[in-house]
Amino acid sequence: MKKPFIFITNDDGVNAKGLRTIIGVARKFGRVVAIAPETTQSGMAHAITMFQPLYLRTVEKSEDLAVYACSGTPVDCVKMGYDYLFPDDRPTLNISGINHGSNSAISVLYSGTMGAAIEASFYGSPSIGLSLTDHDMDADFEAASVFAEKVIGDILSARVESNMCLNINIPKGRPEEIKGFRICRQNKGYWKEEFYCRQDPRGKDYFWLTGDFFNQEPEARDTDEWALANGYISIVPVQVDMTDYRQIGELKKIIR
Amino acid sequence: MKKPFIFITNDDGVNAKGLRTIIGVARKFGRVVAIAPETTQSGMAHAITMFQPLYLRTVEKSEDLAVYACSGTPVDCVKMGYDYLFPDDRPTLNISGINHGSNSAISVLYSGTMGAAIEASFYGSPSIGLSLTDHDMDADFEAASVFAEKVIGDILSARVESNMCLNINIPKGRPEEIKGFRICRQNKGYWKEEFYCRQDPRGKDYFWLTGDFFNQEPEARDTDEWALANGYISIVPVQVDMTDYRQIGELKKIIR
Repeated sequence: MKKPFIFITNDDGVNAKGLRTIIGVARKFGRVVAIAPETTQSGMAHAITMFQPLYLRTVEKSEDLAVYACSGTPVDCVKMGYDYLFPDDRPTLNISGINHGSNSAISVLYSGTMGAAIEASFYGSPSIGLSLTDHDMDADFEAASVFAEKVIGDILSARVESNMCLNINIPKGRPEEIKGFRICRQNKGYWKEEFYCRQDPRGKDYFWLTGDFFNQEPEARDTDEWALANGYISIVPVQVDMTDYRQIGELKKIIR
Repeated sequence: MKKPFIFITNDDGVNAKGLRTIIGVARKFGRVVAIAPETTQSGMAHAITMFQPLYLRTVEKSEDLAVYACSGTPVDCVKMGYDYLFPDDRPTLNISGINHGSNSAISVLYSGTMGAAIEASFYGSPSIGLSLTDHDMDADFEAASVFAEKVIGDILSARVESNMCLNINIPKGRPEEIKGFRICRQNKGYWKEEFYCRQDPRGKDYFWLTGDFFNQEPEARDTDEWALANGYISIVPVQVDMTDYRQIGELKKIIR
């Protein structure tokens, strides 16, 4: 069997502990190419860089591992990999993360980690976004490593060849505290923002965006939020057809 | 009946012709507040600004119209509106656009126009993203205006109170050339990128991201791409649950 080729990116940038951690795990399975943003790109969602040129810097390169830093967004990193760096060499698996911080529920839409995971899945191989529910730059990734290794092994063993995309969130805690995996649906909820207003030295107001997540269905037991709150790793299969088929009939009555 | 309150944003920036056009149309129906990015934000998707403060500038203000410019992304503009500028005053309708360029098919994921339209729908009122399939900064918005007025009127007349979100794309052409509306689903396809490599004055390579859309189902007649190619305005109802329910059963066999 040909050695797996694993493509890795993230949104916390090329120096993030979560990236180094997952590179270490992935190397146990095969050859790794990582392209990560030069700077932190949290909250960049599915953004691409249209009005700036992109730079690509080689960070390290050996037979089984190449790491690059790209000046753009997480999605730019994926596109530079597939359409520039290795256009004729299809990865067996794509991994985005391990993110410092949760990307469950509606955060899948804001997340640069998940933007990159989704983008990578367009190229035909399975793709996983991995996030740890701990924002700390020095977070403990031991549990995340143990369970990431399990998931990667499972996907490679099953020889998944579709463009399956998974949003995987791992709760903070020691490996032995985690109860296992739960295949879930995306929880319903939204972010309510609060803007901190301050004044710059020239007397102009400026604002920091901060927010809290409101869970609209805390009782539902089949969601990613419930899984995480109850000590499980949440796995949500992600699709990219945004069509709300249920509304098509009603809409035909409203707009003619 | 209370006069409608219409919130407007876009991703081409506060000076875009498409924004001025839709403000003119919306004012026929009621009071308008527009918050648009200071600079062009095409391709910014659902990105939010986490590591920079935001500035908000009043561009013009009268009894029935207020226009602001925000230093952030389209989604930031929505959040600043709802959670800072008018937290106690709920818009009847949200409009994002009119975008200079198409946002059909998978472009819904990359589009700042649609990122903002989706975000606005989270706050509970209907939301429409409007795009014209013409990138020209001086594009002819006459047909877009005529049909936008029709759609806005239809939605207000139906008194839609849900957080319905519509991705509406209008083909280039004169009003009389357009065949009408088609309620569609999102077309399957992807962007294949090409990177133009150049050298900066210091001899370092840099890259421009450019791409072409590949339609994976050109024959399907119920998609937005088909509608646009055949002279119709496409309307796709958009939802934000990214869960791929069809995969849940299979996944439970692969990951335990």
